[in-house]
Amino acid sequence: MKRIAVDMDGVLADVYEQFFRLDEQATGLRKTLESVTGVMELEAFQNGRQHVLSDDFFRTAPVMKDSQNILKQLNQQYEVFIVSSATEFPKSLSEKQAWLGEHFPFISWKQMVFCGSKTIVQADIMIDDHFKNLDYFTGQTLLFSQPHNQLADAGNHTRVNNWKEIEKLLL
Amino acid sequence: MKRIAVDMDGVLADVYEQFFRLDEQATGLRKTLESVTGVMELEAFQNGRQHVLSDDFFRTAPVMKDSQNILKQLNQQYEVFIVSSATEFPKSLSEKQAWLGEHFPFISWKQMVFCGSKTIVQADIMIDDHFKNLDYFTGQTLLFSQPHNQLADAGNHTRVNNWKEIEKLLL
Repeated sequence: MKRIAVDMDGVLADVYEQFFRLDEQATGLRKTLESVTGVMELEAFQNGRQHVLSDDFFRTAPVMKDSQNILKQLNQQYEVFIVSSATEFPKSLSEKQAWLGEHFPFISWKQMVFCGSKTIVQADIMIDDHFKNLDYFTGQTLLFSQPHNQLADAGNHTRVNNWKEIEKLLL
Repeated sequence: MKRIAVDMDGVLADVYEQFFRLDEQATGLRKTLESVTGVMELEAFQNGRQHVLSDDFFRTAPVMKDSQNILKQLNQQYEVFIVSSATEFPKSLSEKQAWLGEHFPFISWKQMVFCGSKTIVQADIMIDDHFKNLDYFTGQTLLFSQPHNQLADAGNHTRVNNWKEIEKLLL
């Protein structure tokens, strides 16, 4: 059974929508998608780091469209691990585990990895929105489209624009 | 630079001493080392699981003798990752990160991995007290002696009885 390492932020959790919401609450204006495209998340939104550090940022993040249904199917055909960069923001650890429990209850605690660097991860396939994670990985790499990576050449990675495209590739 | 995956409970954190303390507080009697030898931790102590679930169990665990000084030296010669089974007890996540920050401040958030199963870990050397982790690992394996594994044949693993023996082997 092939092993897949699936990222959380920007793949399962729609952190951009969370940033858009919090930014709109703070400024009264909703940013356009264009204005944040091609810029890293924490630079794209004023006080981005403050938002990430605020209570419940990760706990209340919206779920990425179609991810629940398709990950559930992947979980039957692959050995799925959810691998999330979390230790930079210690408060996020318990929030992320609770969020997974709520939205992806078929993922057991044995399938969760909260880390800082993903270089230590051993799997056959990695789905991630960040080059810094995919570039070190020796297996098959799927670059999940997010505004920050939208303008970049995917290079050796296969770009997927949404979960339906993951379904087509892996199921 | 070779990568080492170092376990926390039973290797860096002296969880047995924590169990002995809590058990003595509850019963008024301190168990002997002999009475817990050869038995898994949670079975060796009455209410073992309750102790693990209690607040601050991991946060206030004593530090294993000589581990701070020797891990600090390893950290200069190896790529060190602290890999801890933590997601079974969600409350332990933040406690473990805070504990590492207090006792091993030279370990950055990038070097921490909190997971359920360690089969996903890729490294050259693993130091752990549990066969269930070492047996799946393809690199060099050091079995750190703890009462629960004391009576077992180390098999393909190299038994180390304390941090001084790790120092001799790896430094």
